[in-house]
Amino acid sequence: MADSSQEKPAEEKVEENAVSPPQPPPPPAKEMKTIVLTGFGGLKMVKVQKKPEVTPTEGEVLIRVKACGLNFLDLMVRQGVMDNPPKTPVVMGFECSGEVEGLGENTAGFNVGDRVIGFVNFCAWAELVAVPAHLVFKMPDNMSFQDGAALPMNYLAAYIMLFDIGGLRKGQSVFVHSTGGGVGHAVTQLCKTLENVTLFGTASYHKHEALKGTVNHLFDHVVDYSQEIRKVSPEGVDIFLDSVCGEDANKGIALLRPMGKYILYGSSSVVTGETKSFFSFAKSWWQVDKISPIKLFDENKVIAGFQLRQLLFKQGQHEYIRSIMDKLFMFYNQGKIRPMIDSAWAFEDVGEAMQKLHDRKNIGKVILDPSLQPKPKAAAPPETVRTDSISEDQAKEKEQGTGE
Amino acid sequence: MADSSQEKPAEEKVEENAVSPPQPPPPPAKEMKTIVLTGFGGLKMVKVQKKPEVTPTEGEVLIRVKACGLNFLDLMVRQGVMDNPPKTPVVMGFECSGEVEGLGENTAGFNVGDRVIGFVNFCAWAELVAVPAHLVFKMPDNMSFQDGAALPMNYLAAYIMLFDIGGLRKGQSVFVHSTGGGVGHAVTQLCKTLENVTLFGTASYHKHEALKGTVNHLFDHVVDYSQEIRKVSPEGVDIFLDSVCGEDANKGIALLRPMGKYILYGSSSVVTGETKSFFSFAKSWWQVDKISPIKLFDENKVIAGFQLRQLLFKQGQHEYIRSIMDKLFMFYNQGKIRPMIDSAWAFEDVGEAMQKLHDRKNIGKVILDPSLQPKPKAAAPPETVRTDSISEDQAKEKEQGTGE
Repeated sequence: MADSSQEKPAEEKVEENAVSPPQPPPPPAKEMKTIVLTGFGGLKMVKVQKKPEVTPTEGEVLIRVKACGLNFLDLMVRQGVMDNPPKTPVVMGFECSGEVEGLGENTAGFNVGDRVIGFVNFCAWAELVAVPAHLVFKMPDNMSFQDGAALPMNYLAAYIMLFDIGGLRKGQSVFVHSTGGGVGHAVTQLCKTLENVTLFGTASYHKHEALKGTVNHLFDHVVDYSQEIRKVSPEGVDIFLDSVCGEDANKGIALLRPMGKYILYGSSSVVTGETKSFFSFAKSWWQVDKISPIKLFDENKVIAGFQLRQLLFKQGQHEYIRSIMDKLFMFYNQGKIRPMIDSAWAFEDVGEAMQKLHDRKNIGKVILDPSLQPKPKAAAPPETVRTDSISEDQAKEKEQGTGE
Repeated sequence: MADSSQEKPAEEKVEENAVSPPQPPPPPAKEMKTIVLTGFGGLKMVKVQKKPEVTPTEGEVLIRVKACGLNFLDLMVRQGVMDNPPKTPVVMGFECSGEVEGLGENTAGFNVGDRVIGFVNFCAWAELVAVPAHLVFKMPDNMSFQDGAALPMNYLAAYIMLFDIGGLRKGQSVFVHSTGGGVGHAVTQLCKTLENVTLFGTASYHKHEALKGTVNHLFDHVVDYSQEIRKVSPEGVDIFLDSVCGEDANKGIALLRPMGKYILYGSSSVVTGETKSFFSFAKSWWQVDKISPIKLFDENKVIAGFQLRQLLFKQGQHEYIRSIMDKLFMFYNQGKIRPMIDSAWAFEDVGEAMQKLHDRKNIGKVILDPSLQPKPKAAAPPETVRTDSISEDQAKEKEQGTGE
């Protein structure tokens, strides 16, 4: 896995060559910039560090990273509120775009210089990353590196949920949280690839103007969306996509029309403050009612859980994933999908980028770009400034945790 | 609903005409043969009775019935172990084929003499039935009336589960109980409309020879199929169709591959003997574990319940159902699906037909045909003979209740 090769010290390479005739000592290892999670917690646990450059091992493609995607999942990793948290220190990041700079054995089909997208289970936020070839995808020629870093996880998740689990058909209705966020925005665009799909969604009020026209019925997070949806569509919705969990799980299942599908794909309600809150964590999970298949039988309903990270890195359905990426590239080439980029940040400004996502201030994808120069810093330590500047409204919004 | 019109006494018609000038008294109402459930219980609660002929009201198509489908659901109705049992006495039956003999107002698109299939919430087992036009479908020209009565519920259920809930794709694997039964057989044929689908199924041992070649891996009901499936496919199956419920629900969910879908569509394990057993009923339901959406999230799994009767008669998705029926007729015309008919019975022999289904002795669909003459009866009362003749093997098989 890229994880271990990334950490491989230069000395090991000498040992591997021990059977060869004596060699001159290797030149000092070249270094690359990475974003490291040094331990679980607040923003200060995330540090830019130099590490020895990685080299690709068998089956791996070495990517010179041009842009990385920042996801709500990364905030959960930082707080340690995810399933199977990694051992720290660890280089963060799950997705990137860039150019192929080297190839391990058995990576047929790729050439140095190819413009690619890569998924990797940590280590994407670095100047170089070694990615297993089955998780590397050649980008369409007209796709920018920023789009290449914005598209993979969000659109893959949205596509699988809407079409493969949800079986979305023309004329149906969909609910999604946080239409201003990564998956939410992907959902709005993918729904438009079918005729006459009605989309219900939430977003913070300040984003409503920017999202005008993308969602049929847009509600603020503080509104009781169940009641509002019932006014428009008394029967409820065909597909309910839930990235919040907690009480929203029960609300979502109750809102399903006959043959409706509830899909849990995140649990952003566990992220309430800058650091882990055991209370929010426990509350989110205890609030979710267990359901008997017999109840689903009585009501003709479907409930599903979808965790892209599991699918990508643990469950080995590589051909399936490739088939969906091909469809997404086709939609991209047809102009049917186009990621919305909120902003791009230097590695050094990752804390500020994370805070923007945390505060739901982004509209579209937040990108990290290793070639960018950091912003000039203010005198006060950034964490203090940020904590002080959170308004009551923002604190409330965080409490609701919508995972944009 | 057809239910009430079926029972409408002739006197009511006179009252409706009360405002018109005095009329000569109506001729004595013509009568039709029906199969009536007189109360919940054993075979003797089912009786052939004459009733006044029905007439179609607004939006109804009057069908001269040529063949009726007998389903495991009808056994559950007889025992009263279904959801929302009807009031007795009631004419039984949910599906039939026949010729249009009359039309109410607002039934555009149908003509007298059309060969049609009808779904109706009770009252299908009669010489005449009035069916709401949205549940009447013109049969392909080359379809026999027997096929027309064998196809609707079984193939509609199988199609919706495999393709719309299951999202079956080429190369995937499916498990289904009772491949010798109605839905099971429909599943085997529909799986073959895609390339390279691996089908696991169960059937009583005596049917294995007849089912050879239709199922990739066929197990007897008494075999621990979980273990056998794991030997062939350690990861499990992509779609698990469960008509048994009880302990099988937990087994099925455990057998799912990543992104796998468990679909509960029946609970035949509640039917153990000729009459309702509270013990089996309660056991079947208590055995089923409740599941948290969070567990599904951790494992990337989908659980669903599907009840065709709810969808057809309560949930009003008429356009959707028509679209599936069109697809089934297309498959039929292409020769890709062909119902397997086990046997056809006179109305008077409905008890024997039910017992055959109960004993899982049928291979394919059991049909009732109002034009058939009853078999000559033996001297002993039929129920007594049947009860005595059940072997230990059969009793065991019943205990397992596979809903064929």
